[in-house]
Amino acid sequence: MELKIYNSLSGEKEIFRPIHENNVGMYVCGPTVYSNVHLGNVRTFMSFDFIYRSLTHLGYKVRYVRNITDAGHLTDDGDVDNDRFVKQSRLEKLEPMEIVQKYTVDFHKVLENFNLLPPTIEPTATGHILEQIELTQKLLDKGFAYESNGSVYFDVLEYNSRGLNYGELSRRNIEELFANTRDLDGQNEKKNPQDFALWKAASPAHIMRWNSPWGEGFPGWHLECTAMSTKYLGEKFDIHGGGMDLKFPHHECEVAQGKACNGTEPVNYWLHANMLTMNGQRMSKSTGNYILPMELVSGNNDFFEKAFHPAIVRFNFLQAHYRSVLDISNEAMVASEKGFQRLMEAMKILNQVSAADNQQGSTLNMKEWKEKCYNALTDDFNSPILISHLFEAVNFIFKLKDEKEKLSPEDLEELKKLMNVFVYEVLGLQNIEENNNEKLDQTLRVLIELRNQARKSKNFELSDQIRDRLLAEGIELKDGRDGTSYSLI
Amino acid sequence: MELKIYNSLSGEKEIFRPIHENNVGMYVCGPTVYSNVHLGNVRTFMSFDFIYRSLTHLGYKVRYVRNITDAGHLTDDGDVDNDRFVKQSRLEKLEPMEIVQKYTVDFHKVLENFNLLPPTIEPTATGHILEQIELTQKLLDKGFAYESNGSVYFDVLEYNSRGLNYGELSRRNIEELFANTRDLDGQNEKKNPQDFALWKAASPAHIMRWNSPWGEGFPGWHLECTAMSTKYLGEKFDIHGGGMDLKFPHHECEVAQGKACNGTEPVNYWLHANMLTMNGQRMSKSTGNYILPMELVSGNNDFFEKAFHPAIVRFNFLQAHYRSVLDISNEAMVASEKGFQRLMEAMKILNQVSAADNQQGSTLNMKEWKEKCYNALTDDFNSPILISHLFEAVNFIFKLKDEKEKLSPEDLEELKKLMNVFVYEVLGLQNIEENNNEKLDQTLRVLIELRNQARKSKNFELSDQIRDRLLAEGIELKDGRDGTSYSLI
Repeated sequence: MELKIYNSLSGEKEIFRPIHENNVGMYVCGPTVYSNVHLGNVRTFMSFDFIYRSLTHLGYKVRYVRNITDAGHLTDDGDVDNDRFVKQSRLEKLEPMEIVQKYTVDFHKVLENFNLLPPTIEPTATGHILEQIELTQKLLDKGFAYESNGSVYFDVLEYNSRGLNYGELSRRNIEELFANTRDLDGQNEKKNPQDFALWKAASPAHIMRWNSPWGEGFPGWHLECTAMSTKYLGEKFDIHGGGMDLKFPHHECEVAQGKACNGTEPVNYWLHANMLTMNGQRMSKSTGNYILPMELVSGNNDFFEKAFHPAIVRFNFLQAHYRSVLDISNEAMVASEKGFQRLMEAMKILNQVSAADNQQGSTLNMKEWKEKCYNALTDDFNSPILISHLFEAVNFIFKLKDEKEKLSPEDLEELKKLMNVFVYEVLGLQNIEENNNEKLDQTLRVLIELRNQARKSKNFELSDQIRDRLLAEGIELKDGRDGTSYSLI
Repeated sequence: MELKIYNSLSGEKEIFRPIHENNVGMYVCGPTVYSNVHLGNVRTFMSFDFIYRSLTHLGYKVRYVRNITDAGHLTDDGDVDNDRFVKQSRLEKLEPMEIVQKYTVDFHKVLENFNLLPPTIEPTATGHILEQIELTQKLLDKGFAYESNGSVYFDVLEYNSRGLNYGELSRRNIEELFANTRDLDGQNEKKNPQDFALWKAASPAHIMRWNSPWGEGFPGWHLECTAMSTKYLGEKFDIHGGGMDLKFPHHECEVAQGKACNGTEPVNYWLHANMLTMNGQRMSKSTGNYILPMELVSGNNDFFEKAFHPAIVRFNFLQAHYRSVLDISNEAMVASEKGFQRLMEAMKILNQVSAADNQQGSTLNMKEWKEKCYNALTDDFNSPILISHLFEAVNFIFKLKDEKEKLSPEDLEELKKLMNVFVYEVLGLQNIEENNNEKLDQTLRVLIELRNQARKSKNFELSDQIRDRLLAEGIELKDGRDGTSYSLI
């Protein structure tokens, strides 16, 4: 079965051919650790977690590098005061590396909650200053960069004049780019406004700084990914992923840096994950249409009627294809929760049902169903289609329980194996049912039954005693139209 | 109240005076991430976690730096093949940074299990290559180091000839050191066998390598801690901690590097945590007297009769002072578990008991008890003595429940507050009882009560019904001499 991947570089689905057989080198742009990770970022990282799990399941040995941006990430090239770390550290009276540590710990906790696997290498920008200085020097030596007031800039016009094409990934026209550029501070250091910083001289107020051949400064954001991907994956590697919003200028700059340094397209397949919206609108702190990942999980927010377990959020996210915009809403989350519960119920039934006699055969075409699942997985990692096939199996499993369908022993084993692989390993969902909750529920049902029985036989002393004793233990019984329910108070 | 700390440098308990009022800079040598963290290391890191929590509770703002050694940690100076990362990466066919990632993730997970707080900065050796190269250059410039075949060594004799004293921390005599040195490979590069590597030239086979003024190589282990502590805490800072086994040569070299670079004693207070033994013997993989932290927790080992929750392990470890050797055994762990449970029971009772009338006063001298607790805490962080005072309170709380003792409302509030602070915040213990287990337990007690009542009134139909219904739900009731118990089957 051939794996097809949509390549942003060509704008087409292509058959995936790794550089080294059975091996995949994959780089994904990681978080900037100066604040809590956004829910939209969680979606992006979850998409690549699913892709990483899928590649691994398909038999590839994946070296998965996801970086931590912990230094010198400028909001724009010209404005040193905008360095996000410096800004935040003044606010919280912490050293920049304390901010980095606080939000790196938070980032790891959040992703672990959503059952994302750690990457195989997680390099930091500050851990590769030397490599970034060396790359800058290489670009200077090759004439693709110039020094200006202790900073070094990439020369976009020079790059294009050598027959290379700045704009090839994002399909932007260099002339239009030049025409539409705003006037920003620090631009006077540059030959042209599109030129981007490889190394920035540090103002006296700047805390994060390193010695370099051009004086004290810090690396430009775009350069770190080139430095780290080259170091751990080589000058040319298989897959580069990131959020759609990074395509320009970040990834465009990576392509330019790679080609200028090594004369080769650095990445074979560029993958971009799409946006997350909430209630049909862009999520943004300034408009208030905004929620933190753990607020969705805790239920402590103004948008959702209840808390949702991270596994249900994960299920919801993977119900959309990574290249589609995904909108979350209360309605959609509640629907996902129902779907998730039905899926988990089916997984439980699957462990309890018996196979038919061998002779009777199966009423499911296992080969065909398996093929459909793998077709979805290998068609640009189509998780929603895969999930829809899993739900065909879910419906079948419920009928199996009611003996309206049947499976041969071999097919039952195969279905068990495949469902477990797809649900837990590939989609990374988790069974969230806690055993003791179930036992408590069963025990309380026994008590409610006894109480109903007592009431029927007009033994009100006993029925009241049951109610009062439970209340004393913090369990309230409530009689309603549909019978008696309980709540833990 | 004055804080007294035992200082390895002076060999005495000293009154702690921070360099900057109300602030503490503390550096602790972190793990070498080339294999799973040892239980002995967990004890060391837990000791400093307790010290960090204590300092914070005492009102200090602590910058707590604990590094990750992820590069160039040589088992001995002369033998490049002994570089642990290179060795392990050949074994597992991983890149060194994949090994680093794998064991860093494991390290964080294990420490989180034992409820250790993350440090405020967690720098890596590979993240400070530039700083280490600069320090090496500084030592060369000052004449404290020399280059030899692309490597740079610290010149111990030169250091001593300037009136400085290599050996002052570990109280070793330089002449004895010279007499007792083994002959090791690579020694011919050194002027004297005690000289230690600041920078090592990389052999062609060496994967982890960086460019430097002396050719491609990697930094010596001792230098990384000097580079990182200086960067984040300054040339002179308050506290440096680590395991006893690091005192020589590692910490001795740090003292020498700091004094040679900056002409000042780099650390005011050196703290060393003592060893962990098991069944009276040193833990060692080669003798088989060895257990991984999570094996103690899972019960999957040959030394302990059951599994122990990480909170119980933590309680056991803190029952010894950090400067004492601690021996773990099955007997000791079982005893700790009992003690822990009694402590948690007391914490529960404390939330349920009522205060005496104000007029009646208290039978506990709250002021005196509080003072004793703080005396223990500020006497070189004496956790076992603190715990013994907490157990005086535990005994008192049990008597309070039986109305054999009494507390005024103010004292009850104070006791609640202090017990919560000491148990959860300072000692970092966790209440491991799960709420739903408790609710299940309470509900089952109600049912057992009803059944006993039914049997007393000879309503055997009802009593049998309760037993059978529960059995159908997987809960078995067992009548014994001490009453009825249950088990989940």
